[in-house]
Amino acid sequence: MKRIVVHEVGPRDGLQMEKETVPIDTKEAWIREVIRAGVDIVQVGSFVHPEKVPQMADTDELFRRLTATPHAGVILSGLVLNEKGLERGLACGVEMFCMGASASDAHSRKNSGMSTEEATRRIVAAAETARAEGKRVQLSVQSAFGCGFEGRISSERVLGMVRTYLDAGFRQISLADTAGHAHPSQVEELFGAVMKLAPDVECTCHFHNTYGLGMANVYAAMRMGVTHFETSFGGLGGCPFTKVAAGNVATEDFVFALHRQSLRPDIDLARLIALARQVAHHFGRELPGYVQKTGPVPSMGVA
Amino acid sequence: MKRIVVHEVGPRDGLQMEKETVPIDTKEAWIREVIRAGVDIVQVGSFVHPEKVPQMADTDELFRRLTATPHAGVILSGLVLNEKGLERGLACGVEMFCMGASASDAHSRKNSGMSTEEATRRIVAAAETARAEGKRVQLSVQSAFGCGFEGRISSERVLGMVRTYLDAGFRQISLADTAGHAHPSQVEELFGAVMKLAPDVECTCHFHNTYGLGMANVYAAMRMGVTHFETSFGGLGGCPFTKVAAGNVATEDFVFALHRQSLRPDIDLARLIALARQVAHHFGRELPGYVQKTGPVPSMGVA
Repeated sequence: MKRIVVHEVGPRDGLQMEKETVPIDTKEAWIREVIRAGVDIVQVGSFVHPEKVPQMADTDELFRRLTATPHAGVILSGLVLNEKGLERGLACGVEMFCMGASASDAHSRKNSGMSTEEATRRIVAAAETARAEGKRVQLSVQSAFGCGFEGRISSERVLGMVRTYLDAGFRQISLADTAGHAHPSQVEELFGAVMKLAPDVECTCHFHNTYGLGMANVYAAMRMGVTHFETSFGGLGGCPFTKVAAGNVATEDFVFALHRQSLRPDIDLARLIALARQVAHHFGRELPGYVQKTGPVPSMGVA
Repeated sequence: MKRIVVHEVGPRDGLQMEKETVPIDTKEAWIREVIRAGVDIVQVGSFVHPEKVPQMADTDELFRRLTATPHAGVILSGLVLNEKGLERGLACGVEMFCMGASASDAHSRKNSGMSTEEATRRIVAAAETARAEGKRVQLSVQSAFGCGFEGRISSERVLGMVRTYLDAGFRQISLADTAGHAHPSQVEELFGAVMKLAPDVECTCHFHNTYGLGMANVYAAMRMGVTHFETSFGGLGGCPFTKVAAGNVATEDFVFALHRQSLRPDIDLARLIALARQVAHHFGRELPGYVQKTGPVPSMGVA
């Protein structure tokens, strides 16, 4: 079995829906805790217009702070939706660029002001620039499993975008369930089809719990050989430009499930649970994740 | 694919942890809503000592009320842990007896005052009596996937109990994850092993969300050919005699997932969502289920 990679997107997807701006020192402390816990990739923030998502206005400064100290063993990723974002990301030390376009025209226009076709074309060009600069690049199809505005999204449409990414030579491909519409059987089908397009593709999944199927979808993806999982501390999250968003699968719940399969015992679950509780305390409310609410994890859980 | 059967256990497992006693008229109204929604089996209550679980003290009276009017198309089940309970159940019109013992000695002693061996022997004898009276019987292994007190429970121990049930001629077998420790790969293994013991066995599963894996376990069970699913409205639930309990998989979330696979379109999801919201309103707090919080289900969801 291939190594499972945990990509913590809490600092980006988890916080972008929060109205209260989290101070940069707090964000930095949380990210450093995630790094100490041994997660593989941390998405520090996104490079969108500060007026559109004020919570992400400090992303450049956060990258500068984090890259100023040694951080071997973790990759710092940033979400970029356009050329301007790429420019900012290249200037502040992003190590891995997460870029993508939405398979839903309606979502694409709300998120980027462009149609799916136009957004895909431009994001591939931006990805080529990032690659030429020696950066890691992950290309995603957003709203790959359904859209709150458009409803069903055809597999052909999603696979067409993936083909465009593959044709441009990219191999890290993410399918994101932005609206939380994915069903496990659909997850198996779609990732199976992607893997048939290129045997050396490295798949990432990203699921929201809008209808309670997040972890079931994670399990279906894992069964299909997906290796990269984007999750969020405490289960925070949601896209501000979709309809009816709910949190991501919680990182600590996912790591608990990995430990139950004797996978990734190197990741410090107790530290992740403590962090999720700290984040819940910060916001003064209960967060959606389970493991952090349950209490001590029984020893049988990790074996 | 075999027909999926939905067994609503909210009135029993969902309410037994609630400190505030729900008036019998309210319980009756909720159960009648579940029946109108088209669920297959409803667990009306349990026959335990009223001092041990006061919330269940009205189970006999509830059965008398519900069986007094025609209710074709639904089976009314009751949970019975001992001979006294069986006697009460036979007297008030229980149609399906759910009986069982815990694979964990520690949990068994707390729940029934007996060791696993003793409880299994006595429950099989009680089940034989119920069968002789022409009743449906489901025999379960509680704490089949792990125990908050004992930790891991060996598959051999669980399969030994299942063999005892099968040898006595029973074919409706339930594995209950009382403490919420199950992992999808374990679910596949254990149900696979049960099905090998008897090709005509009819398997039921029952999962709690203690560590957030409830729906993933449901999906794993469905993949293995399990046909009967015990779920609870709003995701309420938990055993008062286990350690660290959390809610069941929510009925409305499960039915949503079935609809996403074009299964059981005859079950009225909108009615189940309305009921879960009514139950949440009654308790004056947010319940764990997802679909009832998300809002209207997109039309693409049901196709």
